[in-house]
Amino acid sequence: MKYMMTVAYDGTGFFGWQAQAKGRTVQGELEKALGKLFNAPTPCAGASRTDSGVHALGQRAVFSAKTTIPAEKIPLALYPYLPPDISARDAMAVSEDFNPRFMAKEKTYEYRILNSRTRNPLLRNYTEYVPEPLDLDKMRRAAAAFPGEHDFRGLCSAKTSAKTTVRTIYEMKVFKRGEEIILRVRGNAFLYNMVRIIAGTLIYAGIGKIDPDEAGEIILSGDRKRAGKTAGPRGLCLMEIKF
Amino acid sequence: MKYMMTVAYDGTGFFGWQAQAKGRTVQGELEKALGKLFNAPTPCAGASRTDSGVHALGQRAVFSAKTTIPAEKIPLALYPYLPPDISARDAMAVSEDFNPRFMAKEKTYEYRILNSRTRNPLLRNYTEYVPEPLDLDKMRRAAAAFPGEHDFRGLCSAKTSAKTTVRTIYEMKVFKRGEEIILRVRGNAFLYNMVRIIAGTLIYAGIGKIDPDEAGEIILSGDRKRAGKTAGPRGLCLMEIKF
Repeated sequence: MKYMMTVAYDGTGFFGWQAQAKGRTVQGELEKALGKLFNAPTPCAGASRTDSGVHALGQRAVFSAKTTIPAEKIPLALYPYLPPDISARDAMAVSEDFNPRFMAKEKTYEYRILNSRTRNPLLRNYTEYVPEPLDLDKMRRAAAAFPGEHDFRGLCSAKTSAKTTVRTIYEMKVFKRGEEIILRVRGNAFLYNMVRIIAGTLIYAGIGKIDPDEAGEIILSGDRKRAGKTAGPRGLCLMEIKF
Repeated sequence: MKYMMTVAYDGTGFFGWQAQAKGRTVQGELEKALGKLFNAPTPCAGASRTDSGVHALGQRAVFSAKTTIPAEKIPLALYPYLPPDISARDAMAVSEDFNPRFMAKEKTYEYRILNSRTRNPLLRNYTEYVPEPLDLDKMRRAAAAFPGEHDFRGLCSAKTSAKTTVRTIYEMKVFKRGEEIILRVRGNAFLYNMVRIIAGTLIYAGIGKIDPDEAGEIILSGDRKRAGKTAGPRGLCLMEIKF
């Protein structure tokens, strides 16, 4: 039987999602735990390859297993085998041809910015720290340029291997929560580093390094140099994936 | 000159506030950093002795220093010497006879409970995890018994060295924030483990182990055994101290 499980993790202690020869990864730890629970090697596929330091509350992992454990009980059964920085949150049976990477229809990310004069140690691993005061109104004006279908070739890493750089953003919100400014972006798919470059661009708009009303032009230009820096990984969290 | 500084820390990596021979403490690390900044041994006194694992956003530390750095610039000047899990947030000059421990008039603590079927790894060090569904209404009914002046001898650790166990609670709030239930308590002072025992008592009320309408009687009885367990340290955060 094939299963899809929702997985949450604190990315701080991982070299990202994808298993690799050196370094601790989420996929690697998850496969170890699944292997112990099912007493058989259990490779799993992720819906999204999050980078080193990036967090997830709504990552999805798909794996096949022979088990009598009902799907919805797998997360709790898996708990004793998981390290404290990974949690399985729910699971369901899926069809044999289900592919989480190519069948994802919508992803939601949050990017958290700590915008205060001094640091907050409780948030140090979960926010990007920006000491300069951010102008929320300017960030929102810049953010308004993102929703819709655009060619985001200027807002992704040169390392992208995507066939097309056209993506659709359904929603791009900027809001305050205590000392934090949260960017919430929902789209059909995202290019490599795209959310972090959007975050960097909105931060630049917020501190006045970019004219917020030129954000649309920056996207259209396709010029990576006109967008903001790639904001750090620790502020990023994969919130939800829809199929 | 004598200074008072607001200090925030992630308690996860510390054996509490107070310096001791073995183990890393907040006071110990802070004194090391102050010593480097002022180029002289700089003992500091805390307003509150938080336990191992307990966090703070509003701890206060008082120290004397000979320096030309203006008080409000000390936190930023200190930053390069502090470890990432401690942050100095602001500072002011105080009178020579100022004692943060005995002159504190009001303290506010928050106790964060993660109440969900499965764990959230991003909150694992900052919340107490309670998988059983908590009844918010029952917790609020129990919480209503706490405000006012009471003898809290039944709601503190036997290790207390306080002369009197009478304390006044000004406010006791219970509210939901996403998957969390937050207890916010404000009072003139708190006994050893008192907030964690109040939290444990409200958790017991929330899962039906204690009748919420008997919370007043439990306080009056002075019987430690009738109150709930001492809830874990990681859920606790010292938010604010007023003088």
